[in-house]
Amino acid sequence: MKKLILLRHGQSQWNLLNRFTGWVDVSLTDKGIKEAQSAGRKIKDIPIDIIFTSELVRAQMTAILAMEKHESNEPLLFIHSKGKGKQWGIDSCLKEAVEMCIPTHVSWRLNERFYGKLQGMNKDEARKKFGKDQVHIWRRSFDIPPPGGESLKMTLKRTLPYFKNEILPQLKKKNVLIAAHGNSLRAISMFLEDLSQEEVLKLEIPTGKPIIYGYDKGQFKKLK
Amino acid sequence: MKKLILLRHGQSQWNLLNRFTGWVDVSLTDKGIKEAQSAGRKIKDIPIDIIFTSELVRAQMTAILAMEKHESNEPLLFIHSKGKGKQWGIDSCLKEAVEMCIPTHVSWRLNERFYGKLQGMNKDEARKKFGKDQVHIWRRSFDIPPPGGESLKMTLKRTLPYFKNEILPQLKKKNVLIAAHGNSLRAISMFLEDLSQEEVLKLEIPTGKPIIYGYDKGQFKKLK
Repeated sequence: MKKLILLRHGQSQWNLLNRFTGWVDVSLTDKGIKEAQSAGRKIKDIPIDIIFTSELVRAQMTAILAMEKHESNEPLLFIHSKGKGKQWGIDSCLKEAVEMCIPTHVSWRLNERFYGKLQGMNKDEARKKFGKDQVHIWRRSFDIPPPGGESLKMTLKRTLPYFKNEILPQLKKKNVLIAAHGNSLRAISMFLEDLSQEEVLKLEIPTGKPIIYGYDKGQFKKLK
Repeated sequence: MKKLILLRHGQSQWNLLNRFTGWVDVSLTDKGIKEAQSAGRKIKDIPIDIIFTSELVRAQMTAILAMEKHESNEPLLFIHSKGKGKQWGIDSCLKEAVEMCIPTHVSWRLNERFYGKLQGMNKDEARKKFGKDQVHIWRRSFDIPPPGGESLKMTLKRTLPYFKNEILPQLKKKNVLIAAHGNSLRAISMFLEDLSQEEVLKLEIPTGKPIIYGYDKGQFKKLK
């Protein structure tokens, strides 16, 4: 049985400041750093064969800090897809050198929900400007996007194909760690646990706590 | 007098394995993490107004870990240039939210020297394959690039214009931290200290040790 681990990044500076973050690329707080390390200790005896993460530094750093506490102590090698984001990867590396690392695939498809004009705004300010009910609708509806941003449904539509086409095939032979964000992990959880729209809206993914699934014969089973 | 701090990233996994790294995007070792934190403690009482870093995670992480030990405890906001690399930044953020962060500009122009076909190769293997003298020439000549890669001169030619056009103007009013790599920092040091080609080839920038310059009336003075 192979394992799939979902890990939401530790506390970021804007979680702390109660701001809509989305794709704004802010760093982890001291607490976030400790959360990532502590997550690593919790999964330290599960061999990790491959990692998937977003293009945002708070998720990448969570993967690095977690794996730094892992007993395998293997280096992470970040692989950036061509055409999107960075233009290089492992083309010029020797295969042997790559095999000594944990391949860590970076994709914008695992990014946090894009919050459009709300990004950078304090949640209380947003309520003042747009009205409490409107902000509640944007945060808690399935398919109503904020101005210039994504609904949870839109996040799902770009996250799930990546999960199904790129991540799922790896699970046949490998243990997989996904270090990502509240909403991209919600999208994946909706698929894994066959949740309804109402259920996924209520689902809160905790920061820095690994969620572990077993994968066997095409079926997922939540272990922890 | 404003201050310019150069900081080479802490030990990476491939420094440890004695491999040519270049643009291969590997993580920091445990030792590298500690080096970055210790560098932060050394500059903790110098207010940092703006940060420049490369597109490689080992430099970005060094900036984050160093600033996490800084007494200001301000969050880093990563700003990615458009057209190269990531396609977003702070456009949709409120100005006020941005001002609470340390703007951290990410550019490939501060990346490590691109080592072409040597990337991923162990230095001893490279000597075996290409000959000891040839590898020595690639490592220690100013303008002979390895196959598919950059000479130090080529690294200089893409790093220095960025330093002069983007970083230098900031130094009139701001204290600047550059978290980058051995060869991109060599290029900048060559300019700051007016080194000859022979001198820059001999210059070794230590990992995780901040080098501090004072900047006053257009002149740089090494302070530490």
